[in-house]
Amino acid sequence: MSLDYLFKPKSIALIGASHTEEKLGGVILKNLLRFKGRVYPINPKYKELMGLKAYHDLKDISEPVDISLIMRPASEVPEILRKHKGRAKCAVIMSSGFAEIGKTAIQDEIKNISKEIGIRILGPNCMGIYNRYQSLDTFFLPRERLKRPKKGNVAVVSQSGAILACLFGTLDTSNIGVSKAAGYGNAVDIDESEIYEYLSDDKDTDVVISYIESVGDGRRFIEKAKVLSEKKSLLILKSGKGPGGQAAAFSHTGRLAGRYEVFHSILKQFGIKEAGDLDELMDAAKALSYQGRETRGKRQENGKLVLIITNGGGSGVLAADECTRQGLDTAGLPEDKKELLRRIFPSFYGINNPLDLTAQVKDEDYISALNELKDNYDGFVIISLPNVRGITERLAEMIKVSKERIDKPMVFHIAHGGISKKLSSLIEKAQIPVYPSPEKAVRGLKALLS
Amino acid sequence: MSLDYLFKPKSIALIGASHTEEKLGGVILKNLLRFKGRVYPINPKYKELMGLKAYHDLKDISEPVDISLIMRPASEVPEILRKHKGRAKCAVIMSSGFAEIGKTAIQDEIKNISKEIGIRILGPNCMGIYNRYQSLDTFFLPRERLKRPKKGNVAVVSQSGAILACLFGTLDTSNIGVSKAAGYGNAVDIDESEIYEYLSDDKDTDVVISYIESVGDGRRFIEKAKVLSEKKSLLILKSGKGPGGQAAAFSHTGRLAGRYEVFHSILKQFGIKEAGDLDELMDAAKALSYQGRETRGKRQENGKLVLIITNGGGSGVLAADECTRQGLDTAGLPEDKKELLRRIFPSFYGINNPLDLTAQVKDEDYISALNELKDNYDGFVIISLPNVRGITERLAEMIKVSKERIDKPMVFHIAHGGISKKLSSLIEKAQIPVYPSPEKAVRGLKALLS
Repeated sequence: MSLDYLFKPKSIALIGASHTEEKLGGVILKNLLRFKGRVYPINPKYKELMGLKAYHDLKDISEPVDISLIMRPASEVPEILRKHKGRAKCAVIMSSGFAEIGKTAIQDEIKNISKEIGIRILGPNCMGIYNRYQSLDTFFLPRERLKRPKKGNVAVVSQSGAILACLFGTLDTSNIGVSKAAGYGNAVDIDESEIYEYLSDDKDTDVVISYIESVGDGRRFIEKAKVLSEKKSLLILKSGKGPGGQAAAFSHTGRLAGRYEVFHSILKQFGIKEAGDLDELMDAAKALSYQGRETRGKRQENGKLVLIITNGGGSGVLAADECTRQGLDTAGLPEDKKELLRRIFPSFYGINNPLDLTAQVKDEDYISALNELKDNYDGFVIISLPNVRGITERLAEMIKVSKERIDKPMVFHIAHGGISKKLSSLIEKAQIPVYPSPEKAVRGLKALLS
Repeated sequence: MSLDYLFKPKSIALIGASHTEEKLGGVILKNLLRFKGRVYPINPKYKELMGLKAYHDLKDISEPVDISLIMRPASEVPEILRKHKGRAKCAVIMSSGFAEIGKTAIQDEIKNISKEIGIRILGPNCMGIYNRYQSLDTFFLPRERLKRPKKGNVAVVSQSGAILACLFGTLDTSNIGVSKAAGYGNAVDIDESEIYEYLSDDKDTDVVISYIESVGDGRRFIEKAKVLSEKKSLLILKSGKGPGGQAAAFSHTGRLAGRYEVFHSILKQFGIKEAGDLDELMDAAKALSYQGRETRGKRQENGKLVLIITNGGGSGVLAADECTRQGLDTAGLPEDKKELLRRIFPSFYGINNPLDLTAQVKDEDYISALNELKDNYDGFVIISLPNVRGITERLAEMIKVSKERIDKPMVFHIAHGGISKKLSSLIEKAQIPVYPSPEKAVRGLKALLS
């Protein structure tokens, strides 16, 4: 069954709506004011909330809603839920206070009620739903506290609301755009597997990043993850890896994290990509968001030959080291190309891989090098330390043209300083991801070459 | 012999000075204008350069100089160097075009000349010297292209000038202050070992970060590194680890990188700290710069008990995972403390380690938790996701007082968004390092607990 009612609802009720942003129910209502569909705030104490007619109860609303958001104390939730029969397709229970603090009985109760009355549940203890293409935003975080990323092709699926928020913050500062997001919390009903299935066919999404603490039905999870990763780029960050983290994950969502080694080896077996930590997740997501769609399909099994072009020797060495760690091959230049480059470049340039254009680099040197070597490599790491005068904003336009002609994966490392912000922004406009360290750039390229 | 003449010179000659910042010799001269000692630009074509009297030759200067900076093509350097006899204590040869591009003969020649005429050499192919406490800056990178970090206690020793520049950029954006820096390039004479020896007794320096591609005299290196790491915090980033990087390192400075496994195991044996990549180097450097001096000496062998306090469950789990990876122990709370915290906190807070204050957190909750648990742990990771309303700038002042009372290592992770920049800046003013991810915060704490 499609989750369209969840990601593309026409009508939303908010149980626990408030008149003030001092309360979470007020923050959510404020965010819902942007939603293009119908919004019904429910709070028996008010006739009107933030300019909208307020309702006493679900049953007073003239239509059954697609989703009802519940932001009331856990103890009240079973009774609230019982009143949902025939009044809502799905309840998004955002409140905490369930299995994550040991209260399994009340969590089992809401699970049973949902089956009885035939209603789907997202949560409890969850962040809810976000659809950038429909101005749908159920988060209980005010926008002035958490900037929403620009519109884009990355979907975020996170068991933890906190991580979802952190990912949004980092996506925004990393200039990566978002399509949809879901925080599914304790997952008594709708879980990562069902969301994966839905996103497999979502035309707005090319990349799915997924933070998981625990998995309910392992077999189903693998099945859906496999399908998703065949159709889109899926990146999983699993936490609860060690004994400390596992205990923490259990107390956080009340589901067992399971033995990480098992999880890891199954993912590997099915070719599903995993990130080691938040940074790795972001590095890969950025590259896949920028160039993933065009590189999908035409990747070759052995296409791991990487050329590093740099204007700083040391940065090139660090990039080469990271290539080795990532299983990428920095094979040297063919002899005929060496000869040729020695003729066109000054004698002190390092004609190797990394190709070292030194501090005396000029913008056009990068282009000359790419022109000569584009057919000899599968991917390109370009390092531009913009603290020398030879690098200007013109480089962005030149690289853009070059990238279009070469049509292979290409990533940049641009160090801090000088024109770095402006240059990075221009290069990213040409759909080339820019990273703040040589190692991160290589990790980005790795995501495109595997 | 002390390197005071190099790091605290009274007089500097610049051979290859230029009138324009279009040329590297002009950029260096511009940076030297800030220097408090005597500066002698040398260029036979000019009588005056940037407001300073220009000299035809070293011999025309009325005194022997402490250092002469040479920025002339490699082919001219031997002849220039011969004229140094009795005219300079040390030549800093910044030009490239020596062993790093296979021209070992000319590099051997300058080495021999230096011995003949009794002059020390830094370089060739190097970035030179920086002393923040003397406004000494020989870098050929303009300040508008590379902002120099604030004054501080971190010294940077880098074989590569590019990495030195990247480290400066990252130190600046990470709010870490610098004391001195040296880029020593191909190291025909003065090398990392001699600089380590000098910095061992430098009162302005608490932390030394060192980027190394290759080591000349391994035995001496270990000896000096050991002494330095007993007196200061020393962090080494070694590149040229894999075959790709090793080839790259060789072509960059013309010294063999050696087998990395050997280097790594010797460092480990002598308790010298190594960072895996640029990010790890910065994460550790930050913590050590902020709290290294106070935690040095009072570290206990078994002091690895870490408390994580968070307002986001998932972020706490990721921190706990990283603690496991770093060999830190996230032991649970003592039962009596659990009881106590259950009484003072709302029922839905997660009373464990990580201690989960949830999205409904208030500033003072962090302080209450620290007050109750300060004696039970050796170090503290505090996670503050400032996209909820309960976290305000007041937290910084409260934490400052708390930190002074607790007097144990403490690090923060603050996620992007809302008041995060302002809050981070205030907390760092209290000498508590702030990191953009939970994993980085844990890596920072690890540097303080080992």
